[in-house]
Amino acid sequence: MKKFNTSPISGMQELLPNLQMEFNRLKNGIHEAFQAHGFQDIETPTIERTEVLLAKAGGDTEKQIYKVVKTAETASDADQALRFDHTVPLARYVVEHMNDLAFPFKVSQIGRNFRGERAQKGRFREFYQCDVDVIGWQSLPIAYDAEVIRTLMDALQVLPIDKFTVRVSNRKLLSGLLEATNLNQQATEIFEIVDHAEKVPAEVTAGVLTELGIGEERVQQILDFIKIHGERAEVIPQLRAMQLDNATFQAGIDELDTVLGLLETRAGERMQVVADMLIVRGLDYYTGTVFETIAPEYREIGSICSGGRYENLAQHYTDQALPGVGGSIGLTRLFYILRERGLIAESETKPVDICVIPISANEYTTAEYAAAHLRREAARVDIVMTDKKLGDKIKYASKVAKYMIIVGEDEAKSGKFTIKNLETGETKEISF
Amino acid sequence: MKKFNTSPISGMQELLPNLQMEFNRLKNGIHEAFQAHGFQDIETPTIERTEVLLAKAGGDTEKQIYKVVKTAETASDADQALRFDHTVPLARYVVEHMNDLAFPFKVSQIGRNFRGERAQKGRFREFYQCDVDVIGWQSLPIAYDAEVIRTLMDALQVLPIDKFTVRVSNRKLLSGLLEATNLNQQATEIFEIVDHAEKVPAEVTAGVLTELGIGEERVQQILDFIKIHGERAEVIPQLRAMQLDNATFQAGIDELDTVLGLLETRAGERMQVVADMLIVRGLDYYTGTVFETIAPEYREIGSICSGGRYENLAQHYTDQALPGVGGSIGLTRLFYILRERGLIAESETKPVDICVIPISANEYTTAEYAAAHLRREAARVDIVMTDKKLGDKIKYASKVAKYMIIVGEDEAKSGKFTIKNLETGETKEISF
Repeated sequence: MKKFNTSPISGMQELLPNLQMEFNRLKNGIHEAFQAHGFQDIETPTIERTEVLLAKAGGDTEKQIYKVVKTAETASDADQALRFDHTVPLARYVVEHMNDLAFPFKVSQIGRNFRGERAQKGRFREFYQCDVDVIGWQSLPIAYDAEVIRTLMDALQVLPIDKFTVRVSNRKLLSGLLEATNLNQQATEIFEIVDHAEKVPAEVTAGVLTELGIGEERVQQILDFIKIHGERAEVIPQLRAMQLDNATFQAGIDELDTVLGLLETRAGERMQVVADMLIVRGLDYYTGTVFETIAPEYREIGSICSGGRYENLAQHYTDQALPGVGGSIGLTRLFYILRERGLIAESETKPVDICVIPISANEYTTAEYAAAHLRREAARVDIVMTDKKLGDKIKYASKVAKYMIIVGEDEAKSGKFTIKNLETGETKEISF
Repeated sequence: MKKFNTSPISGMQELLPNLQMEFNRLKNGIHEAFQAHGFQDIETPTIERTEVLLAKAGGDTEKQIYKVVKTAETASDADQALRFDHTVPLARYVVEHMNDLAFPFKVSQIGRNFRGERAQKGRFREFYQCDVDVIGWQSLPIAYDAEVIRTLMDALQVLPIDKFTVRVSNRKLLSGLLEATNLNQQATEIFEIVDHAEKVPAEVTAGVLTELGIGEERVQQILDFIKIHGERAEVIPQLRAMQLDNATFQAGIDELDTVLGLLETRAGERMQVVADMLIVRGLDYYTGTVFETIAPEYREIGSICSGGRYENLAQHYTDQALPGVGGSIGLTRLFYILRERGLIAESETKPVDICVIPISANEYTTAEYAAAHLRREAARVDIVMTDKKLGDKIKYASKVAKYMIIVGEDEAKSGKFTIKNLETGETKEISF
């Protein structure tokens, strides 16, 4: 009988071992791709000074931040809270350690972040983010924007999804268009409207733009602009054909062209790369390249991985210019949705390769000898030492392992063992 | 110029990338040993209901717990705090999921825990614990005590320490001795005194025992008992020779004998296993086997890894008997001390295997092609795309990588490359 509510707090991922193994397999696969591209791991503390976390944030972020109560022994510390993303602690880290880092600093962060938002199915208050960022010293060539996207594309290959579409744009394009049409005073509102345009009919977008006091012709120009999407070979000429006499806009075209060009070798059957002017990303933070990745067969997942270029990582902490580009995979939410869609296999993987079952305590030494031998060949080996009947030990082995080896008197004497595949029933003789 | 205090909060580990890599190497090595022994990974949330965390705890633990402030959107939740160890969340997890687990449940937990204690050199408020536990359903054979110790012994091999001594005892021995001598009313105090006996002269221990009102003969008997230590072949006969007519004491001898016997095959030049009656472990929690591991050459490190048998993992949450045995490596503190002692090499390992350096943007596609090829052979490859001079690019490569490949016009045409070892200067021709 339970004496207590033992469920985890709402909004926290807690998995049974076989699902945990699957989650870890995806997490490790993503990490391997980050490493293969030369990104270096760092790990910042879970707890940060509240003033560091909130130097830039505000609004929802401030409302959702988990503050930490100081204990009697930490009472003299500054106010503290749990980190809500990897970017803010990264900014602090880079400023703190700038003299010891090699720039461009290619950095990978995979860890748990926290947001105390309203409990809701599929929303997590504690969640894994898998981030890559490249931070430049004073400047950072546009080629790194492509490198970040390429790295994330390689990381996504580990997911049980057949097809991905990477949608790329550059915020300088819409910014330039607004400058050229004297709408840059309303840029924040217009970016927000474009960010939501995909979710509503074009008339609604037109309506809210008109409500801002924007004339019909300008509204139509924006609507025409955000419809532009497709392969590099179509989109770049379309953008050039707009013949906007604005340096920001032209820089946006060049950057987008470069990034798409560098990604062409990497695109393929499974990974499509397109330009799409609907992509602006919500955050003010981004200043150039922006991207999102969707799975066309599972559009309801939304963006699987996203990011962009920011002109200055750490302007709140230092005067040093540290431009960067980064992206992130929200793994906890993604895993939840993949499970919901039946794309995560629960039962195929077993946590143990081989269960060694000594018939009695007399065979423990032999069992241990056999297990040590098998472990040297990188097998995961469990020795079943319960005082149950042999049948019960075999039942346990079938639950956790792929193979079993029973060790009785004969095996202990001869050093010859029978290894049995618990799924197929096949047996094979081995000896150590 | 810094505008902010950007140092991490006191008591939090924050490492530069090359040290982070070393830390991760140790953490992964420990994890591999846990997996090789058939332990299954789980991960419980960082935040738990305070009532779950404090069901059993009290005293210092309660004072050091980090409570979390609820946000407006989580206001209706129960009070929450950060976990301070893996054992309490494990108890909750096992009760919550007992119908879905295979018992004995061999479980591995590697993650961060939190204690808001006074800032002090080498003490951490956020720290990694690497735990293994075996949880039985109603009963759990003593052989699993040896399995937990054996697993931890294998895990410790990854550390840059030449020699370890595992000190094993069984709390039933001192408990039985106190029962037999009618001192069991004062068991808690006496266990505490024995737990500290190693740090003070024998006269001090005698003094505090006498202060408890224990007669001279009994005090001497305790002092004689806690001096017993050595190999199984010496210690077991010594304990039997005490001829104590007490069932608990005799059970303690049998259990200790069995555990030491099962560990004999695993002991060796690097790993010594001894019985030592000074080992009782501070916590009331333990009921049988207890162990600590020290490095004889670095005694100041203290216990590197410790644990024991507990009769009931989750008595505060369920009536179901769930006996277990477990142990833990406190990796953050250990890593700190190893660094202090100069046992962690900072510079030997490089985060990148090969830096590919395209001379200009014209060679980006070839560089990317070469990198993709090398990554398929599991190399970690960085492409240097800064707009610096070649000399600066090579300087960067020397910092992060072991090898470099320069890609110019000729290489792009011929598909033939020169790979240079940046440490030795050696070169080799390769072609894709």
